[in-house]
Amino acid sequence: MIDLSNELAIGIDIGGTNTKYGIVNHRGEILEKGDLRTDAFPKVGPFVDALYKTLAPLLEKNSEENVIKGIGIGAPNGNPFTGTIEYAPNLRWKGVIPLCDLVTAKFKLPSVINNDAKAAAIGEMTYGAARGMKHFIMITLGTGVGSGIVIDGHVVYGHDGFAGELGHTTIRPGGRKHSGTGMHGTLETYASATGIAITANEMLDEDPKSKSLMRKYSREEITAKVVAEAAEKGDKIAQDVYRFTGQILGEALANFIMFSSPEAIILFGGVIKAGDLILKPTREHMEKNLLPIFQNKVKLVFSELKEADAAILGASALVWEMKEPVTS
Amino acid sequence: MIDLSNELAIGIDIGGTNTKYGIVNHRGEILEKGDLRTDAFPKVGPFVDALYKTLAPLLEKNSEENVIKGIGIGAPNGNPFTGTIEYAPNLRWKGVIPLCDLVTAKFKLPSVINNDAKAAAIGEMTYGAARGMKHFIMITLGTGVGSGIVIDGHVVYGHDGFAGELGHTTIRPGGRKHSGTGMHGTLETYASATGIAITANEMLDEDPKSKSLMRKYSREEITAKVVAEAAEKGDKIAQDVYRFTGQILGEALANFIMFSSPEAIILFGGVIKAGDLILKPTREHMEKNLLPIFQNKVKLVFSELKEADAAILGASALVWEMKEPVTS
Repeated sequence: MIDLSNELAIGIDIGGTNTKYGIVNHRGEILEKGDLRTDAFPKVGPFVDALYKTLAPLLEKNSEENVIKGIGIGAPNGNPFTGTIEYAPNLRWKGVIPLCDLVTAKFKLPSVINNDAKAAAIGEMTYGAARGMKHFIMITLGTGVGSGIVIDGHVVYGHDGFAGELGHTTIRPGGRKHSGTGMHGTLETYASATGIAITANEMLDEDPKSKSLMRKYSREEITAKVVAEAAEKGDKIAQDVYRFTGQILGEALANFIMFSSPEAIILFGGVIKAGDLILKPTREHMEKNLLPIFQNKVKLVFSELKEADAAILGASALVWEMKEPVTS
Repeated sequence: MIDLSNELAIGIDIGGTNTKYGIVNHRGEILEKGDLRTDAFPKVGPFVDALYKTLAPLLEKNSEENVIKGIGIGAPNGNPFTGTIEYAPNLRWKGVIPLCDLVTAKFKLPSVINNDAKAAAIGEMTYGAARGMKHFIMITLGTGVGSGIVIDGHVVYGHDGFAGELGHTTIRPGGRKHSGTGMHGTLETYASATGIAITANEMLDEDPKSKSLMRKYSREEITAKVVAEAAEKGDKIAQDVYRFTGQILGEALANFIMFSSPEAIILFGGVIKAGDLILKPTREHMEKNLLPIFQNKVKLVFSELKEADAAILGASALVWEMKEPVTS
């Protein structure tokens, strides 16, 4: 038996605005954490330097009794095959960024990158609701809709590393247009926080005389959170917004289940703060759209990781998944 | 190196009406073949006896210089985990049929079963268009729509063996009702041969005065083949039927691609006899509904196996995939 108790991993989650980092052990405990502004760095080089400067004293402190095994990075459009970030629309660093090379050169530690949703799936499998599961699908419901698919205990990458773009699958052909992709009726246009706000405005517009707690907000002020708060206070239109969102999400999940027959679907991200408002209609319509052989078999659950920590944990879990180098 | 040149496999394809069998070598050459009526046997026992009686002399003849490695069976609702056929709606044998046990007892040979679409995928990977591919999706377009998904070189079974029911995914929410499942707007209701005939009748009904070569047939006589023949002769409505079918199929394939990012989708079954009539609109709408990162990357091709032989080849290929027994 190899003693893993003194191994630590660095988890770094890069978002468009903020970057969070943490030092994590095998039990998923975050020993140190912090953050810095991503958007303060027009160039990636100074960003890596700043990251090193803030992390170095923490690493030194924790290196005496522990071994830092490596650095895991979750980032939009992170490509695990090449160690790069490729054309991430929300980052200031354009084109193909060889982030793993830069980080490894600076930290003298092996590093690995993955896109944020796949990192979240690995985090959930390592520390969260998917522990012990070999077949599950992670759906992240935030500003956008992301996904990480696990089959036979492995994240599905496909032939080019891009598998698992379930947010961009069409669920309402000819439906609402996605402002980013231009595609119509994709899951993300409805089931993201952005989509929920659009649905709320559409429903308020449909019957301008209907009463709603949401009418005290301007169009721009209506967010998924505002809708959830109104729904919890009994607002009928707000409740309808979540019913409609859950219906579309449930239909999409049924399709995903008939593809890979997972034992669970795990929902994650800001939208799940609405709790049963989103969970109940989603489950109802998921079951309704399944062939009988799949019904009442698939768990639909929320992530067990605290949202504030999940991205760091997911990134750190990439380190435990790293292949051992051939020479050591 | 083990010499495989003298190994043979028996491939058996069980359909509701006919059962085909063949003795196949590693190159995919069918040395012997034949068939018998499935529906002549109300009980499975006498069916296995009859199969043995017809195959025994062929096996004896080929056993002198060769080794018969085992028996692969493709069957509707064939479950590879249990070796059984479970509640197959098109077979006279009801409930759970322990077919592998029966066949192995009679033939004194190891046997393995799989559902017909998954067997077709394995056949294509072994002998056909998917040789050397690690990521592809096989879609069978016959009376129904089946699928076999291969990721990282392995057929996807999911946690319970039922993965890959892509024919039952919803592509037109609230759309046409499936006469068997009762589900609405599923791929099978449109892209199967049955669906094509329904679409043709619907389009003929929409404008009863429109001219069409198909009007010389009764509603029941209109099949996917009749529609294809009319379309090839320039019949506008018949061409529209295939355009519509291809649109729906293409949209569905785009969703599947964004799930597992395969290098190819392979189409198989009676419907592909329509050639470009179905291939062109399918490809157009597949590309149109993909995120740019997936566009112009995924091959959309027809099976390379002769339809008459494909089922036998697929079933035989299951034998080469069989795990070696622990004791030999």
